[in-house]
Amino acid sequence: MADNSRPAHPAAPVVLGQNQYGKAESRVVRITRDGDTHYIKDLNVSVALSGDMDEVHTSGSNASVLPTDTTKNTVFAFAKEHGIDSAEQFGIHLARHFVTSQPAIHRARIRVEEYAWERIEHAGRGAHSFVRKGQETRLAQITYDGSSWEVVSGLKDLTVLNSTDSEFWGYVKDKYTTLPETHDRILATDVCARWRFGWSDGAEETPDWNESYEQVKKHMLEAFAETYSLSLQQTLYQMGTRIIEHRAEIDEIRFSLPNKHHFLVDLRPFGMKNDNEVYFAADRPYGLIEATVLRDGREARIPADLTNL
Amino acid sequence: MADNSRPAHPAAPVVLGQNQYGKAESRVVRITRDGDTHYIKDLNVSVALSGDMDEVHTSGSNASVLPTDTTKNTVFAFAKEHGIDSAEQFGIHLARHFVTSQPAIHRARIRVEEYAWERIEHAGRGAHSFVRKGQETRLAQITYDGSSWEVVSGLKDLTVLNSTDSEFWGYVKDKYTTLPETHDRILATDVCARWRFGWSDGAEETPDWNESYEQVKKHMLEAFAETYSLSLQQTLYQMGTRIIEHRAEIDEIRFSLPNKHHFLVDLRPFGMKNDNEVYFAADRPYGLIEATVLRDGREARIPADLTNL
Amino acid sequence: MADNSRPAHPAAPVVLGQNQYGKAESRVVRITRDGDTHYIKDLNVSVALSGDMDEVHTSGSNASVLPTDTTKNTVFAFAKEHGIDSAEQFGIHLARHFVTSQPAIHRARIRVEEYAWERIEHAGRGAHSFVRKGQETRLAQITYDGSSWEVVSGLKDLTVLNSTDSEFWGYVKDKYTTLPETHDRILATDVCARWRFGWSDGAEETPDWNESYEQVKKHMLEAFAETYSLSLQQTLYQMGTRIIEHRAEIDEIRFSLPNKHHFLVDLRPFGMKNDNEVYFAADRPYGLIEATVLRDGREARIPADLTNL
Amino acid sequence: MADNSRPAHPAAPVVLGQNQYGKAESRVVRITRDGDTHYIKDLNVSVALSGDMDEVHTSGSNASVLPTDTTKNTVFAFAKEHGIDSAEQFGIHLARHFVTSQPAIHRARIRVEEYAWERIEHAGRGAHSFVRKGQETRLAQITYDGSSWEVVSGLKDLTVLNSTDSEFWGYVKDKYTTLPETHDRILATDVCARWRFGWSDGAEETPDWNESYEQVKKHMLEAFAETYSLSLQQTLYQMGTRIIEHRAEIDEIRFSLPNKHHFLVDLRPFGMKNDNEVYFAADRPYGLIEATVLRDGREARIPADLTNL
Repeated sequence: MADNSRPAHPAAPVVLGQNQYGKAESRVVRITRDGDTHYIKDLNVSVALSGDMDEVHTSGSNASVLPTDTTKNTVFAFAKEHGIDSAEQFGIHLARHFVTSQPAIHRARIRVEEYAWERIEHAGRGAHSFVRKGQETRLAQITYDGSSWEVVSGLKDLTVLNSTDSEFWGYVKDKYTTLPETHDRILATDVCARWRFGWSDGAEETPDWNESYEQVKKHMLEAFAETYSLSLQQTLYQMGTRIIEHRAEIDEIRFSLPNKHHFLVDLRPFGMKNDNEVYFAADRPYGLIEATVLRDGREARIPADLTNL
Repeated sequence: MADNSRPAHPAAPVVLGQNQYGKAESRVVRITRDGDTHYIKDLNVSVALSGDMDEVHTSGSNASVLPTDTTKNTVFAFAKEHGIDSAEQFGIHLARHFVTSQPAIHRARIRVEEYAWERIEHAGRGAHSFVRKGQETRLAQITYDGSSWEVVSGLKDLTVLNSTDSEFWGYVKDKYTTLPETHDRILATDVCARWRFGWSDGAEETPDWNESYEQVKKHMLEAFAETYSLSLQQTLYQMGTRIIEHRAEIDEIRFSLPNKHHFLVDLRPFGMKNDNEVYFAADRPYGLIEATVLRDGREARIPADLTNL
Repeated sequence: MADNSRPAHPAAPVVLGQNQYGKAESRVVRITRDGDTHYIKDLNVSVALSGDMDEVHTSGSNASVLPTDTTKNTVFAFAKEHGIDSAEQFGIHLARHFVTSQPAIHRARIRVEEYAWERIEHAGRGAHSFVRKGQETRLAQITYDGSSWEVVSGLKDLTVLNSTDSEFWGYVKDKYTTLPETHDRILATDVCARWRFGWSDGAEETPDWNESYEQVKKHMLEAFAETYSLSLQQTLYQMGTRIIEHRAEIDEIRFSLPNKHHFLVDLRPFGMKNDNEVYFAADRPYGLIEATVLRDGREARIPADLTNL
Repeated sequence: MADNSRPAHPAAPVVLGQNQYGKAESRVVRITRDGDTHYIKDLNVSVALSGDMDEVHTSGSNASVLPTDTTKNTVFAFAKEHGIDSAEQFGIHLARHFVTSQPAIHRARIRVEEYAWERIEHAGRGAHSFVRKGQETRLAQITYDGSSWEVVSGLKDLTVLNSTDSEFWGYVKDKYTTLPETHDRILATDVCARWRFGWSDGAEETPDWNESYEQVKKHMLEAFAETYSLSLQQTLYQMGTRIIEHRAEIDEIRFSLPNKHHFLVDLRPFGMKNDNEVYFAADRPYGLIEATVLRDGREARIPADLTNL
């Protein structure tokens, strides 16, 4: 039993601030059958709950605490009960459940990573064989406080590259500037993005989450490809603008774009000219360009730092 | 030259929100010599600058943009000019420089990871041989907006474990609860923490950043070890309280603590009793406990999510 | 200058064994233009050279050492001089060069990782925009000793899953066996494979490396999908057999296949039946199944351990 | 039930080569109590078994297959039955068990990673609080074929750095050489090493595995620190020689040493001289130096490639 030598409620002027808890990274795979044809959804689900949780911090009493193990069980049970139509819809089921069923829980935030699979084409019977697509990871974050909803979808690790139509010149030079200007360079980045939906009233119809995702990704790629770029910031802004203009359901999008440097190798010592043919792909350091693009009149609510660097 | 087919300033009601840019992850190693005795500082420095940056996003004009390559050069040049006494002091030099020397830059945020080294003891001459300590990574974030400073230090990947004096019982049971109560379990976590200093006026004397770091780590470890724990939240709160009580220079600390589950292996099928001796250390899922502990009357300013899950 | 206190040639009975050196992980990106249409090859190249290298180990004399920096330069220069038709052909150019141009180098081994890109479809001009495919990493290893060639190609991180048509039963039970038999389970693995070509005489025509790779991957996926599996070993053997039977240029293939466990979640405590619908995807531990399949009469030369666990 | 359309024993001239299987990466933590003082061993154990395993590959019959799940259970049960005195001794128990208890298993190889912990010093009662040391990972590989033993111990991720007493000059220059010679550079590497013990007869007394490990690490670090280095190869050879000379129980040691480049930053454009003070720590590419050092007259049996690049 406990015999802490220090008082549980120290006299010192210390207060508890924002806090949340839950089970992170429950890896749930859901198979659905339509005769011999199977469908797969592959998610990584993290639950974070907030509410009347002072006592568990100050005295260790768990009287208001739904165990994180239970939040994990709920994820698996809901995969059976509700199925997984989309990460967003699945998260809505979970968030509503925790907030409405537990008096002490006032806010639930569900984060989901989704991994895409495609079918293996073959001559055998059935359709139950899959190969992981391996491109970007789809993201969804659903937050519910008992009255209002916030859904932020996103993606990460979508690596794109333009081998021309990118310039960089006309910038500020100070005493530490040595970079030469360029009128033709490779532009490459790993797209990390989050976009927030206008939908917040549970009584209103939800967007088609899956269709929206596919369209956002399509516009993002097209804007990256079609923008003649004078800076990665310009490309970012074009990508965001394209999405806000084309997708009425989205109010705001934030990007975190590393400028993945591809340095033209100096081949002159070997008697060769490098006519934008051979590049060294560097790891670190890299430029990091981050910005929010939003619909006029809407509030920016996606936090500034999508990554920790 | 640029010939974007889409207008740089689209008519649509799109606006630019918060944005920042800079070079991330410059890996600078600084050697200092005192005769045959060498000292080493090993940092990973990331710069993020904000200010009058609308044009580079909307038209691609770089007229206000100090290149990220220059911010990297500045990091290396300042390692020579100012030396590296602490990650925090080094960041202060950098942040002040960018904000005061560039009219378009109104805010600079420097993030630093620091890797600790210890000397290799040996019988040879000199003292210039090191082995990386390999324990936690030290963190510092310095933000300056031209008038006020904010310094948030921290650490990550400090893995700790109590093999007893941890219980978990008396929690809420709902229809999805299957977890049995326990009165003796392993409690283990990878400590990820950030703490904010009260210092914000550049005219006032700065704390001793290195001494403060060592003391915070010491109190953190001691509080983890000495707390008889009824919940990881209680342990977290004790760790935070201990620091706020003992370190007057710190106003606020936030923790993100994964509950690294060590499951007692059921050895009964093999005719054995497992008297808290043999555990399976699980990877995922894990509990994730996050909270801020702050000095009464001070503002909580460290963002809620220190990690992305 | 050197003043080692210990003798360079110690009297003790110590001898130097196998040794090799070179630059690892040169990240070369090669762009080729056909008017407005660009092509991209994206490689990670590692060089390992062996030969008369005793002196550099025992006395530190570099008189026979081509610097690893030079081997890196050669990679970039050859990307210009020879282009990159395939990882295998590129490695052949490099290996031949090192062995034939440097008297002290008797053997060169080139290892290549290749990352695949696909075009971004869009309405803009030109064809110079790419998105990384993100599926498996293609591998090639080319070894040359001045007379004979060995080419081993491969892939890693190709994640596949069958949601049915997999059983596991009839196995040995000892006192530590608790696993229940199953007649319907998920079978999933990350394919890691290496295959060796029969080609070894530089005077003979080389295989079509790119076509061979595509066909091997196709047969591998088809065999995985079409095999009704009683064990992962059986699936592995079918995959290998299919390739040896269909691809005359290949003598031998070795697989390292983690059995990525997907555990059926017990939903009975929640009053539900789990009819092979909801699974927990576990990280560790995992089964690891490794085997070589080879053409009768040919020598097995691919080392047993493709991964380090 | 199975209805494979392809024959299980194809007529084609395909044969099965070397194969092995088992459960990889079982994460076992063992707590031992001496009153209020606890001790901890933290291992990652991988089992690989070989023998009469043709049928499971060709027909899918598991009649000779001890499930990988059972090998995992055995790891946990043996942690209770035998305790964990050292990774090597624990592996010997496991390997002997599998080979002697299962007729179809003729060879067992146990691989272990061990993570070191140190005590947290504090004023509270008991001694059951630990912080992970975080430096190198200790490795052990135990192989038994029913008559002879082979034990290979090792370590990885031991990062060391000399800030002077390293030169590199007098090397071969060819047309691709641009590297300038240097007489004072940083020498840094992540030590990855494996050493093989002479012990192979189970009837003979085993070495003191833990004492041996500590001494090997000590000699390795001292040799790195005390060697004035003209090449990383020379340093490697000194490290190996020191161990063979001082540790009679060891016959052979192999190193894989990345040359972690620290490039002196050119500060002249900023009007500064860089007197070996400020370095850029590069990620890739890196030199990779690998060699075996062995006792004269003993066989070299550690495979050449400790890493996959």
